[in-house]
Amino acid sequence: MTPLYWEDVQIGARRELGHYTFTEDEIIAFARKYDPQPFHIDPAAARHSLFGGLIASGWHTAAIWMKLAIAEREAAAGTSPLLRTGVSPGYADMTWPKPVRPGMRLAFSSEIAGKTELRSRPAMGLILSRNEARDDTGDLVFAFTGKSFVERRPPAA
Amino acid sequence: MTPLYWEDVQIGARRELGHYTFTEDEIIAFARKYDPQPFHIDPAAARHSLFGGLIASGWHTAAIWMKLAIAEREAAAGTSPLLRTGVSPGYADMTWPKPVRPGMRLAFSSEIAGKTELRSRPAMGLILSRNEARDDTGDLVFAFTGKSFVERRPPAA
Repeated sequence: MTPLYWEDVQIGARRELGHYTFTEDEIIAFARKYDPQPFHIDPAAARHSLFGGLIASGWHTAAIWMKLAIAEREAAAGTSPLLRTGVSPGYADMTWPKPVRPGMRLAFSSEIAGKTELRSRPAMGLILSRNEARDDTGDLVFAFTGKSFVERRPPAA
Repeated sequence: MTPLYWEDVQIGARRELGHYTFTEDEIIAFARKYDPQPFHIDPAAARHSLFGGLIASGWHTAAIWMKLAIAEREAAAGTSPLLRTGVSPGYADMTWPKPVRPGMRLAFSSEIAGKTELRSRPAMGLILSRNEARDDTGDLVFAFTGKSFVERRPPAA
């Protein structure tokens, strides 16, 4: 399996990362550890909050995106070529436009949104990805722009 | 305790959110659940990775930032005025410039970086925060720009 270089990446190429259903127990367990606000950990208090009920921590939704992205990459590793990626310079424009409530099933995806040549790193290119989670009605629930360095194809000898 | 309005927020106001030391066990436990890449979960494999050793998932560092921010806000709730905040429209420019390794102690902080009046929401203002984690040598390890809607002061009757 030949790894892909930056030159091989197609803008618009899309990966479906799978579905995930958030349970109340899991929402509470994550938030107790990392984001213990009343509307994330206490169903009664959440009903009186501006959200009107329990919702998942935004970091929980982000962590599940990562979990599914890794699982999909591992599942694909034997059958489709992998990118020669390096460290990510970070993420941008992270947003949670619709709250995640217990029982909601989200569909996660990742799509190549842009490619940037880097004067500062001639051996690498930057790839921008548009990453999303949508609920069963198609509403956007979570999105961010990912950035990855990917190796350029070496000049032919 | 009178809550603070958008008008009361001072650019440059800074909150020290406390320190946190990442252990190998905790790094592995978080990553097994949410980010099971070899350099996050397997010390032996990590030594042969481009990081040269085990490092924390970037989402783990972000979740700890949130944990400390909530704890600091709760600790301050009785003694200092709280902001009248609403939902956050999201985050921007999230970056992890230096890997977090087992035993590293990070200092987390949050500083008001900007204030924006919103034509679209006259009752709310936007506040931008610069949020960071630094190691004991002062190096930047994690940073992102937070955005929060905050209530404007109602016109005097």
